[in-house]
Amino acid sequence: MFIAFEGGDGAGKTTQIELLRGRLIEAGYDVVVTREPGGTQLGTSIREVLLHGDHVAPRAEALLFAADRAHHIATVVRPALARGAIVLQDRYLDSSVAYQGAGRELDPAEIKRLSLWATEDLLPDLTVLLDVTPEVGRDRRGEVHDRLEAEQDDFHARVREHYLQLAAADPGRYLVVDASLPAQEIAAIVAERVDRS
Amino acid sequence: MFIAFEGGDGAGKTTQIELLRGRLIEAGYDVVVTREPGGTQLGTSIREVLLHGDHVAPRAEALLFAADRAHHIATVVRPALARGAIVLQDRYLDSSVAYQGAGRELDPAEIKRLSLWATEDLLPDLTVLLDVTPEVGRDRRGEVHDRLEAEQDDFHARVREHYLQLAAADPGRYLVVDASLPAQEIAAIVAERVDRS
Repeated sequence: MFIAFEGGDGAGKTTQIELLRGRLIEAGYDVVVTREPGGTQLGTSIREVLLHGDHVAPRAEALLFAADRAHHIATVVRPALARGAIVLQDRYLDSSVAYQGAGRELDPAEIKRLSLWATEDLLPDLTVLLDVTPEVGRDRRGEVHDRLEAEQDDFHARVREHYLQLAAADPGRYLVVDASLPAQEIAAIVAERVDRS
Repeated sequence: MFIAFEGGDGAGKTTQIELLRGRLIEAGYDVVVTREPGGTQLGTSIREVLLHGDHVAPRAEALLFAADRAHHIATVVRPALARGAIVLQDRYLDSSVAYQGAGRELDPAEIKRLSLWATEDLLPDLTVLLDVTPEVGRDRRGEVHDRLEAEQDDFHARVREHYLQLAAADPGRYLVVDASLPAQEIAAIVAERVDRS
């Protein structure tokens, strides 16, 4: 079983992955926790290329992220799933689609197609979307003082909107949870859904 | 004008690019000579990732080459073409398609689609295919002594076959020249074709 956790920065993905991991291990499951971008040595090298380079052409950047994903899925996730493990992954395909869609540089549909080619069409069995409302997001990021912060606010609102559209388009594979709830309450909602799967 | 030079190793691409470059510069043209893979700082970093990593998943490798191409076309080739320069490029899209097709790891049609997305559908105005026959190729690579060399022979024959298929499918954009001819004779054939374009 392959479970992806999605949501804006500060949504609490790391906490929820740890809580679910503990619960599944107690129940005797083989659990693999991993993340994108990164998650492999090649992924780390690719991130260094992205961070240390000067300007990177937008399509080159999208292709580098897709290369990281292709290698990570082929060498970490698929082998784990093949031996029967439950994979909990911090960010996957929807992050690329939602952030690219919000950034408006490239067509999100093309980013999705690229990711599906990279992963040979691997979709999560369940995607947990920790939904950060604009209000909570603003609180967590601090007050809006200037135009740049207002733009960031607007950017995060667009990321959220894209995430919610993705979830609405395929409700059977998504669990949307209000990220402003207490962590233990969110964990219980997630556990209940995972138990049903 | 964008001219790509293609052909197997030892076909004489570097020599022909230099001869055409000299001729065009003498005629007063702005000429940019470049190559793939590589050709940019990002491309050099990507090559290091490919060379120094351990196993790289096949789709990750294809995506890294496509990222190199995307950045190279966006930051070197398109700006040169936009200012009116003639770009002479050592290897382009057809190399990826022919070598991937011969290696049989991934579908060549998908590799082509990936490259076209990376470059926003930039095709050369002319592709010069320096065609190395199996006989010349064998001579240049030395005698066949063992099974590995016989396999390499077979691989080069498949690369050549793919190149010839690409040229046959779009004769208006290709010039196929027998790479076993003397360099000056090949240069004259190429120059005649470029002058007509």
